[in-house]
Amino acid sequence: MWFYEKKLLYPVRVSTCNPMLAKFLLELYGGADGELAAALRYMNQRYSVPDRLISLLTDVATEELAHLEMIATMIYKLTKDATPDQLKQAGLGEHYVNHDRALFYTNAAGVPFTAAYIQTKGDPIADMYDNIAAEEKARATYQWMIDLSDDPDLNDSLRFLREREIIHSQRFREALEILKEGQ
Amino acid sequence: MWFYEKKLLYPVRVSTCNPMLAKFLLELYGGADGELAAALRYMNQRYSVPDRLISLLTDVATEELAHLEMIATMIYKLTKDATPDQLKQAGLGEHYVNHDRALFYTNAAGVPFTAAYIQTKGDPIADMYDNIAAEEKARATYQWMIDLSDDPDLNDSLRFLREREIIHSQRFREALEILKEGQ
Amino acid sequence: MWFYEKKLLYPVRVSTCNPMLAKFLLELYGGADGELAAALRYMNQRYSVPDRLISLLTDVATEELAHLEMIATMIYKLTKDATPDQLKQAGLGEHYVNHDRALFYTNAAGVPFTAAYIQTKGDPIADMYDNIAAEEKARATYQWMIDLSDDPDLNDSLRFLREREIIHSQRFREALEILKEGQ
Amino acid sequence: MWFYEKKLLYPVRVSTCNPMLAKFLLELYGGADGELAAALRYMNQRYSVPDRLISLLTDVATEELAHLEMIATMIYKLTKDATPDQLKQAGLGEHYVNHDRALFYTNAAGVPFTAAYIQTKGDPIADMYDNIAAEEKARATYQWMIDLSDDPDLNDSLRFLREREIIHSQRFREALEILKEGQ
Amino acid sequence: MWFYEKKLLYPVRVSTCNPMLAKFLLELYGGADGELAAALRYMNQRYSVPDRLISLLTDVATEELAHLEMIATMIYKLTKDATPDQLKQAGLGEHYVNHDRALFYTNAAGVPFTAAYIQTKGDPIADMYDNIAAEEKARATYQWMIDLSDDPDLNDSLRFLREREIIHSQRFREALEILKEGQ
Amino acid sequence: MWFYEKKLLYPVRVSTCNPMLAKFLLELYGGADGELAAALRYMNQRYSVPDRLISLLTDVATEELAHLEMIATMIYKLTKDATPDQLKQAGLGEHYVNHDRALFYTNAAGVPFTAAYIQTKGDPIADMYDNIAAEEKARATYQWMIDLSDDPDLNDSLRFLREREIIHSQRFREALEILKEGQ
Repeated sequence: MWFYEKKLLYPVRVSTCNPMLAKFLLELYGGADGELAAALRYMNQRYSVPDRLISLLTDVATEELAHLEMIATMIYKLTKDATPDQLKQAGLGEHYVNHDRALFYTNAAGVPFTAAYIQTKGDPIADMYDNIAAEEKARATYQWMIDLSDDPDLNDSLRFLREREIIHSQRFREALEILKEGQ
Repeated sequence: MWFYEKKLLYPVRVSTCNPMLAKFLLELYGGADGELAAALRYMNQRYSVPDRLISLLTDVATEELAHLEMIATMIYKLTKDATPDQLKQAGLGEHYVNHDRALFYTNAAGVPFTAAYIQTKGDPIADMYDNIAAEEKARATYQWMIDLSDDPDLNDSLRFLREREIIHSQRFREALEILKEGQ
Repeated sequence: MWFYEKKLLYPVRVSTCNPMLAKFLLELYGGADGELAAALRYMNQRYSVPDRLISLLTDVATEELAHLEMIATMIYKLTKDATPDQLKQAGLGEHYVNHDRALFYTNAAGVPFTAAYIQTKGDPIADMYDNIAAEEKARATYQWMIDLSDDPDLNDSLRFLREREIIHSQRFREALEILKEGQ
Repeated sequence: MWFYEKKLLYPVRVSTCNPMLAKFLLELYGGADGELAAALRYMNQRYSVPDRLISLLTDVATEELAHLEMIATMIYKLTKDATPDQLKQAGLGEHYVNHDRALFYTNAAGVPFTAAYIQTKGDPIADMYDNIAAEEKARATYQWMIDLSDDPDLNDSLRFLREREIIHSQRFREALEILKEGQ
Repeated sequence: MWFYEKKLLYPVRVSTCNPMLAKFLLELYGGADGELAAALRYMNQRYSVPDRLISLLTDVATEELAHLEMIATMIYKLTKDATPDQLKQAGLGEHYVNHDRALFYTNAAGVPFTAAYIQTKGDPIADMYDNIAAEEKARATYQWMIDLSDDPDLNDSLRFLREREIIHSQRFREALEILKEGQ
Repeated sequence: MWFYEKKLLYPVRVSTCNPMLAKFLLELYGGADGELAAALRYMNQRYSVPDRLISLLTDVATEELAHLEMIATMIYKLTKDATPDQLKQAGLGEHYVNHDRALFYTNAAGVPFTAAYIQTKGDPIADMYDNIAAEEKARATYQWMIDLSDDPDLNDSLRFLREREIIHSQRFREALEILKEGQ
């Protein structure tokens, strides 16, 4: 019904139930360079950057929130049909005993998300370099995830998301040039 | 310009530059029972609750994200005209040396936000009680903030936000009854 | 000798050496909704609740401390005869290299206990709802643990402990009603 | 009433309402070398030490739990008559906005207690040296607290507690000698 | 004697005892973008970068370790003659009750250093952008510190250190170009 | 080339690619009682100990930094030829998705290093007992690591490092005696 459409809105598919891949995907959900970290970083910076960068930050933050929902959908699909025993075999027993199959904001090792992963300095040059670095680190994380995955449908979506980080990195490099010219 | 409208979209006013109140407001930005904690909690739970609760969670999560921007606007307005020396006098020197006047997701004591503040169990009854408790704790935090503030304009907004938490608590109590009946 | 009686005082039995179950049980020792979290929560609240709730909190806190020792006994029995190689196979190598077979206050993923898991607001209604939520979350954690376990003796004890959380939840609901009537 | 006797059981007195001293005392409540850390350390070690050390650990752990309640009583008495404005002036505004006047397990800077402060290695010699160090660090913390306090009644109790840490250190040194002889 | 020369080796001078400046300087000792974070970041990356970048990383890591000792010397000099009461007035009472006048790896707000502030991805482009961002964030931190300080001698040293971060940023930008050309 | 000599300077050998041992060795890299914790502890204490202990602390801190590089070399050698699939099988998938094969300062469970593991009190007796305890805990950690390892070359190096911790413990015991005599 409507729930189905709601939750599975995003065009992500997985080939098979594979909870170990779900475990690794947590890195992109609540990890140091995952989508939650990215969305929060850009939402927060909007109050201290020069005016002409606000809409860029809002754009990217909004997109990252959508990516967060895509990752959530992937994890949901990779685990929803798994038994407790299958979760245990896949190294998700630690997650199950705390959260059942529900999502939670940890990294792949189970460490809860912390704002210490991100930063806002109030210095636009420093913040823009930090944003470029954040996107490059997210790109790398998607690559390491793809290396660990043998699910062709999942990898299609992961490659799409990796490409988006490259685009974001490029946009922040352009923003940096605009800032430097304006000094 | 458009920046002004963008950033100050929400109907929050402050009577005067008062960085010490901004410091305390950080509790409602990145603290244990602040708006970031609330928004993330409900966004995340949507993937494991029964279908008929998803739109409630999406509604409240969306509203909490808007409240997060209201708190951000308040902190911005309370500090934007303060000198470094005024920030130091107000107990915000520790924040300034790390972030200038930029916002960051810490509580009032400067502790970075951690997902350890929140939880999702995958058990709908447990999660719904936890949501009620979260709203009651947020309500109390708004009350303690109002107790510390002598800014009448700010307090108008804070009372509005406190009321919203009471409404959310009521909605989660109704959801809990629906769940219990459905068992 | 007396040591045997001392340490194994509580009526918990395990069917066989099974270090993987010990690993998952750490969630109930030093995890977000484990027995340490519960005992500390209630001990601490006694100084700010209305007088007529103090003995309830002392009662439950004391019982949770006893449950903490029951969980400790279970973990001890499930691991005491395991070789380092068996611990490694069971996913306890990370624990062993830091603590040998000694207990430590982490969750099942190895994350050290943090007080960020719990809260005390000083508002009795908020705190009582939070206590109900804590008990419901503990109940769910026991359920997820039972789902992962195939040890019939262990599960007998876990079911007993799960029932106690239901009783505590009920007692805090009664306390909440008393508080609301008294307002 | 009975509440009064219950909560104020321990022979601690304070000369006057002084919330800044309460703030510093939090170090001995939920700080790295405070009473919570001590009690949890010894309770936990009982499951891995040689049999002949178990009753020593139980003794000291029990006493540290009592000291935790003494510190709680002190903090309660130093703050119970303070207004929000007085708490703000004393540097407790950050605490108030989160917890009102309720106690919570943080250190004096407001950092939540973490089990990372303590350790259990499963090696009796290492653990016993660590216990001696813990007691010496607690002794120093009491000294630094006394240095900051000008409340003569409070200092009487603090000196008593400092002396107890010296006694505990001595007992752990004796236990260490017994262990070394037994090797 | 030799101790004096040893500890005060670095050419840092302070004009007067000023513990509040020492408190803020902790941000550059154990904070998110301080010298400890920088030194550890580069030391660690040496094992995964391409060979031709190793000596650059060793050079900068070594210099950052020296800067860490310069910051330590500054904090030592700004506090060594302060009484407990002066430390309390300067907002260092929370530090004193835990550490006396000893140094410790926290930020200005008293939060213990965590490796979550830094990162190493194993992707040289991502790591090099992250290093540039780290240097720009350190530069900004020095600037915010200078803004809070009215000690002319201290500010001379802080300006020197700020300049070094600019040089390091430039060197990492060159390294990035070399990497990009080599791809 | 020079890179080879640089990185592999220390006389550590491993018998075979074995990423699971690398995972456990992370405990000695970024864990509670690992070499990073040790080096930082002693570097930091130099500013508050009596003059006659400074060179001892500098000596040991320098040696621990060298040991940190030895551990780094071991981890590098144990993983450099492993495929992503082999890392996944060895329980290093969580590490790989975040860091590829790069090193990072976590413990074996993947928890980021925190300064909460260590302490400096400014009281020389307390700090010296804490140093002895730190060395004894490091010794135990090496022992537990050796218990988990069946790599004879690696174990040779680990035994050497374990011996060094015993020597350090002895030196800190001597320093403690000197301090006690001087009182």
